[in-house]
Amino acid sequence: MPINPNAAIEITAFRWVPEFAQGVVRDLRARWALEEAGLDYRVRLVGQERPPEYLLEQPFDQVPCFNDGQVRIFETGAIVQYIGERTETLLPRDPQGRFRAIQWTFAALNSVEPAVLNLLLIDIFYAGEEWAKLRRPGAAEFAKGKLKRVSDWLGDKTYLEGERFTIGDLVMTTTLRFLRHTDLVAEFPNLAAYLRRNEARPAFQQALADQLSVYAANQPQPQPEGATA
Amino acid sequence: MPINPNAAIEITAFRWVPEFAQGVVRDLRARWALEEAGLDYRVRLVGQERPPEYLLEQPFDQVPCFNDGQVRIFETGAIVQYIGERTETLLPRDPQGRFRAIQWTFAALNSVEPAVLNLLLIDIFYAGEEWAKLRRPGAAEFAKGKLKRVSDWLGDKTYLEGERFTIGDLVMTTTLRFLRHTDLVAEFPNLAAYLRRNEARPAFQQALADQLSVYAANQPQPQPEGATA
Repeated sequence: MPINPNAAIEITAFRWVPEFAQGVVRDLRARWALEEAGLDYRVRLVGQERPPEYLLEQPFDQVPCFNDGQVRIFETGAIVQYIGERTETLLPRDPQGRFRAIQWTFAALNSVEPAVLNLLLIDIFYAGEEWAKLRRPGAAEFAKGKLKRVSDWLGDKTYLEGERFTIGDLVMTTTLRFLRHTDLVAEFPNLAAYLRRNEARPAFQQALADQLSVYAANQPQPQPEGATA
Repeated sequence: MPINPNAAIEITAFRWVPEFAQGVVRDLRARWALEEAGLDYRVRLVGQERPPEYLLEQPFDQVPCFNDGQVRIFETGAIVQYIGERTETLLPRDPQGRFRAIQWTFAALNSVEPAVLNLLLIDIFYAGEEWAKLRRPGAAEFAKGKLKRVSDWLGDKTYLEGERFTIGDLVMTTTLRFLRHTDLVAEFPNLAAYLRRNEARPAFQQALADQLSVYAANQPQPQPEGATA
């Protein structure tokens, strides 16, 4: 378990988020990559209200930020690639293998995640709105189309590029998890098996447990009886 | 002008697209990066209907694919990074500078482009649909919020990380161009100036001219009078 308050590597994470977001907030990607790489890290928790200075670290006001004393970056795609470059475990060294892994990282974040997150937003944030009801079937179809592309590519391979798990699989897996409130992934048995296979990795399980334990420790207290809602 | 039919580097591009897409199709990013890097390339044109084998090159059935005889990749983020690694022009060599540039590439594609493309789709593809009319104000506000984040970060800097143009600026610029049918970028004078500054680069102008010349040469012929629509 590489969480270590004295580690050189620091990431930021939220102190608490509502249940629908627990287990999918993006610091999970950084935690997972660090676990796979066996790199110690510490976590700086931030609340739902961040001080204005936080924007100097993360211009989009999100988590995680990454800082190892050498490099300060945000964006999980860049963070997992940086971690990948520190260990051959997650990112092959040969140019073709390396860029196939990087390419799948971009594919997860740009060709799959927008469709998937759009559906999540419709189902969670905008569920009561008229446009969301009208758009939902089309948005689900669109997301499903992206899953079909990934499923067709994956075929009977173990990972996106064959036998070796890379940062591309790590980011794709966490992207697919945004659909856990639906049955869409289950419609593609090879993709569902791929998701289960990757989630079963000890490094993922550790990262997930560590993210969730923070939320459990910072669960907001129920309002005392009679308090204003 | 590095278009050269005998070049080792090949990219794919569409033979023709409707006017709203001309000048924003993603091979523009690869062309621009190659121009900045001074690398010769050739273009393999594909039609709106691709053979099924194309999915083995590009699982999402998009353009561009990149092949230099050493590496075959898709996803423009990965392609511009690969080109960037072949020349210091676009991607600093020191770890911090390098990963700040990579980070902005991911930021453009994952933190900005989804909001921007969502608005483009509403305005172009779904303009007649009831949900699109209802959603349009919120989607515009959301996209504007992302632009504000970038504008606030940019401040009075020349480029996202200071005085040096990188792949991050290249991808951010092409992402902002998806909003050219709106006035949203103009609401942020520093962002509008940044966009103009980057579009004025000779390498961009060459890349754009080369993309558009393909469409001009392959403009569908008007139907003869009396032909079935």
